[in-house]
Amino acid sequence: MLSGGLDSATTLALARHQGYVCYALTCMYGQRHEVEVESARRVAQALDAKMHREIAIDLSLFGGSALTDPDISVPKDRSEETLSTDIPVTYVPARNTVFLSLALAWAEALGAFDLFIGVNAMDYSGYPDCRKAFIQSFEQTANLATAAGVAGQRRFRIHTPIIAMTKSQIIQQGVQLGLDYGLTHSCYDPDDQGRSCGHCDSCLLRLKGFEEVGLVDPVPYQGR
Amino acid sequence: MLSGGLDSATTLALARHQGYVCYALTCMYGQRHEVEVESARRVAQALDAKMHREIAIDLSLFGGSALTDPDISVPKDRSEETLSTDIPVTYVPARNTVFLSLALAWAEALGAFDLFIGVNAMDYSGYPDCRKAFIQSFEQTANLATAAGVAGQRRFRIHTPIIAMTKSQIIQQGVQLGLDYGLTHSCYDPDDQGRSCGHCDSCLLRLKGFEEVGLVDPVPYQGR
Repeated sequence: MLSGGLDSATTLALARHQGYVCYALTCMYGQRHEVEVESARRVAQALDAKMHREIAIDLSLFGGSALTDPDISVPKDRSEETLSTDIPVTYVPARNTVFLSLALAWAEALGAFDLFIGVNAMDYSGYPDCRKAFIQSFEQTANLATAAGVAGQRRFRIHTPIIAMTKSQIIQQGVQLGLDYGLTHSCYDPDDQGRSCGHCDSCLLRLKGFEEVGLVDPVPYQGR
Repeated sequence: MLSGGLDSATTLALARHQGYVCYALTCMYGQRHEVEVESARRVAQALDAKMHREIAIDLSLFGGSALTDPDISVPKDRSEETLSTDIPVTYVPARNTVFLSLALAWAEALGAFDLFIGVNAMDYSGYPDCRKAFIQSFEQTANLATAAGVAGQRRFRIHTPIIAMTKSQIIQQGVQLGLDYGLTHSCYDPDDQGRSCGHCDSCLLRLKGFEEVGLVDPVPYQGR
């Protein structure tokens, strides 16, 4: 799964580094920061993905999240403590379950068994679908859900290489692999030129990560 | 989940009979028999669904099934034995995982916890995602995947009221509840007037079911 963000781009770089032939899947789910899809295209190309598919599914039909409902504001400048404990309004109901289902559908059609997703349990400890318990349960479900899984010759595996890393560790890893983070996009609430706001949870965590590794984030921010 | 077919229509009738306020969700996934969506609308209205949402997600992007790839033919006139053992080419990779993920997303946004799906393990014993083992595993995953599930005050439940019924038992049940099967559509390969072919797996099972209960299937068939 490749959103075009920092985490999924690093995950793709790691999968490739481990020798996998990579098929990147990006979901346009009605997110207000759909500009990230352009980043996904750039990252897929830069990292030589064998194929890149974009699939549209309008989760804004269901609502319930600041990322898909324009009437709910994206929180700004939250404290570090709040960031790491609350489930924020940017949580999208069942999003990673939907994403992994789609990845599973494509994987089975391709004859692939290894799914990579850039979930992270450190920064977003409040997101239930970023935790190991969820991932393990989905992996089990995947092997019961599919003809390929039930055949039993190979098992589907959900790889989450950055699940236990801090943002700065993720960035260090990506830099080491030669990933250009200027291609990525993380902001939940960019302006119409695609510039990051610098104040949403995603920007705060990203900026802090770059600061900790002593690098300047190469993406453009509003008012800088 | 309401496809507009016989099984999901009966499942909706049963859910309503059990006193649930029903929100119907229909998925346009690039199926060649998209005419079933019109049936879903008719059924949702006839059974007083509180809301009916249609969500588009083009699984034909991934291919791998006769239902989503026009270059793969729908099998016709297969023997009863083959029907009940093989995984046919009409199997859509991970389809019910995708459907249940979407239902879960909407349920969580609504504050609902009871999901109904008309899977059936009798007629389609070859479909892995129609079996109890899959449903139980998905239910567990759902409760780990979501903020509402993790909060733990209520658990998501996946209801499969017709999973162990034969087609004739399903029809008897629906008739008993006053369901008009003339509103439904089952054929995988209808003509451009929406008439059923009478020869695909879905038609064969449906026709056999009506025959066993001594009723005439009210939907139009080609050449009759």
